[in-house]
Amino acid sequence: MSDFHELIQFIRSEVNRDLKRFPLPESPAYLYNPIRYTFRGSGKRFRPILVHLSGRAFHVDPDSLMKISLATELLHNFTLVHDDIMDHDDLRHGQKAVHKKWDESTAILTGDGLFAIAQILLNNLPERSNNICRFFNEATLEVCEGQALDKEFENDITISVEQYLSMIEKKTGALLGACAALPAILIGRDKDTIDALDQFGRNLGKGFQIHDDLLEIYGDADTMGKSLGSDIYAGKQTLMVIMARENDSRELSEMLNEVNNYSLEVMQNYFTKSGIEKDTKKMARGFFDIARSYLEKIEKIDRSELINFIELVEKRKN
Amino acid sequence: MSDFHELIQFIRSEVNRDLKRFPLPESPAYLYNPIRYTFRGSGKRFRPILVHLSGRAFHVDPDSLMKISLATELLHNFTLVHDDIMDHDDLRHGQKAVHKKWDESTAILTGDGLFAIAQILLNNLPERSNNICRFFNEATLEVCEGQALDKEFENDITISVEQYLSMIEKKTGALLGACAALPAILIGRDKDTIDALDQFGRNLGKGFQIHDDLLEIYGDADTMGKSLGSDIYAGKQTLMVIMARENDSRELSEMLNEVNNYSLEVMQNYFTKSGIEKDTKKMARGFFDIARSYLEKIEKIDRSELINFIELVEKRKN
Repeated sequence: MSDFHELIQFIRSEVNRDLKRFPLPESPAYLYNPIRYTFRGSGKRFRPILVHLSGRAFHVDPDSLMKISLATELLHNFTLVHDDIMDHDDLRHGQKAVHKKWDESTAILTGDGLFAIAQILLNNLPERSNNICRFFNEATLEVCEGQALDKEFENDITISVEQYLSMIEKKTGALLGACAALPAILIGRDKDTIDALDQFGRNLGKGFQIHDDLLEIYGDADTMGKSLGSDIYAGKQTLMVIMARENDSRELSEMLNEVNNYSLEVMQNYFTKSGIEKDTKKMARGFFDIARSYLEKIEKIDRSELINFIELVEKRKN
Repeated sequence: MSDFHELIQFIRSEVNRDLKRFPLPESPAYLYNPIRYTFRGSGKRFRPILVHLSGRAFHVDPDSLMKISLATELLHNFTLVHDDIMDHDDLRHGQKAVHKKWDESTAILTGDGLFAIAQILLNNLPERSNNICRFFNEATLEVCEGQALDKEFENDITISVEQYLSMIEKKTGALLGACAALPAILIGRDKDTIDALDQFGRNLGKGFQIHDDLLEIYGDADTMGKSLGSDIYAGKQTLMVIMARENDSRELSEMLNEVNNYSLEVMQNYFTKSGIEKDTKKMARGFFDIARSYLEKIEKIDRSELINFIELVEKRKN
C-alpha cells in the first residue's frame, strides 16, 4: 500500500496546485476573492482523487481527467458553501466558512460562481462533453434533493434507517458515483460499465457517510479536529441514533437525557453495549463490500487502485 | 404590430403552459414545491420570448427552441431567487419571494435546483449542446459578476456612468445576449453572426435597464405595481442618480435632502429641469439603436420580428 499512499499524495498535491493557480480574474473581488479562499481550504480531495483513480483504471488521458476532477471538487465546494449557510456551520476545512468570513450574500454568490465555473470546465472537454455534463448535472440535482431531505428530516423523529440511507445516497453517493463514472463516459464505454461504476461510487459514498457517523462517536478527537459526539449532543439524527430509536426508543431517550451534561463516555458505552456500534460497523462494511462487488463486474478494467481506495476510505481515522 | 403582439402573447402563453406542466418529482417537497411556486410567478418572459424570436429569424426547430427558452427562464429565476435574498426584496412577480414564503435555506436550495435543471434541459439538446452550454454558462458567470459589482457599488458614491454601464451589461445584458445568440449556435451559424446577435442582446439589455431606471421615476404607478421613486428614495444608485452626481453633486444632495419627506414630484422636477431625464432617454435610445445596427449586420436573417421586439422593449410602460 505504500506506493498507493504516495500516489494519493501525488494526486492530492497536483489537485491543490491546480486549484491554487486556477485562472480567475481579479475583479469583481466580491465574487473572486471568496472563490479563491475556498480553493485554499484543507479539503481531503476525495472526489477529484476518485476521478483520477477511476480514469487510471481505464487509461484515460490525464489532462481531461484533471478538468473533470476539478469540476467535481468545485461542485462539492459549491454545495458546502451553501450547506454551511443552511446548517449554520461556521468552520469548514480548517478555516472560517465563507458566510462567516464575509456574509451570507457573499456566500450565496460564491456558491453560484463555483457552480458556473464547474460547468464551464466540463463544457471545455474535447469530446463527449454533452454526456459528461448530463450525468454530472443529474447527480448535482440529486445532491440538492439529498440536502432537501436532510432539511426535511431535521427534528423529525419518525425517520427510518431506510429513509436515512436514501438521503445519504443522494447527498453523498450521487456525486461519488459521478466521480467514478465520468472517466468511462468520457472514453465512450458501454452502459453496463458506467452503471457499475456509478453503483460502486454510490455504495462507497454510503459506507463513507456511515463511517463518518461512527467516527463522530468513536474517532480520535485530535485527528478529527472537532469535539466528538457533538452532532448527537446537538440533536442531529445520525444513523446510530435512528438505529437506537428503532431498537428501543425509551432507552435512547434515557441515554440522551443522561448526556444533558455532555458525556462522550456515556454515549460510547450506550452504543457499544446496545450492539448498535457493531451493527453500524457491519452496515458500513456491507456497503464497502457491495462497492467492491460492483468493481468485480466490470470487464477490461485495471481495478487494483480502486480496490485500494475503498480500503483507504474504510480505514480512515478522520 | 397587432400580429406581432399576438405572436408575443402566443409565445408567452406557450412558455407559461410548459412551465406549468414541467415534469418535476413530488418529493422532496422541500425542493420541488418552491420550484413549482416560482414557475407560477407572473414574469414577463422576455428572455424565453427573445430565444423564440431569434430562433424564428433563422427558422430553427421550435422543439429545441422551447428547451433553450425554458433554460434561460429557469436560469433567470434562479438568479432572482438568490438576488432577492441578498437584496432583501420580499416581493417577486406578484407573489412573496421564496425566502419570505418559506425561508432563506429553502430559497438558496431552490435557486441551486433551478440552476441544475436549466443545465439538464440544455444537456438534452439533440445537437451542439456542448457549444450551447459553454456560451450559456459563460453568460451565467457574467451574471454572477454583475450581481457582485452591484453589491460592491452599494453605498459607493464614486461609481461612474461607465462602471454602471459595465455592471448592467453583465447583470442584464449577458443573458439577453445569450438568448439572442443560442438559436444561431444551435444551427451552427458562423462566429460573426453569433457575435452580432450577442451584441444585439447586450445592447438591448442595457437599453432595457436604463429604461427601467426611467420608469422608476416617470412610469405609471398602477401599471408598474410599485411605488415610484422608491429605489432612489432608498439610496439606490440608478443611472440617473449617478449622472446627477457627475453633473452637480451639491445639487443632487440638496434634492435628496428635500425628498427626505418622500416626494415623487420633487424628484421628477429635479431630473427633468436638470436635463438628466432627457440625457437618460437619449442614452437608452442610443443603446436600442446600437442593438438595431447589430441586427442590420447579419446576413441571411429574417430580422423583422427582432426589430419589432426592440420597439416593444423601448416602449414598454411597466
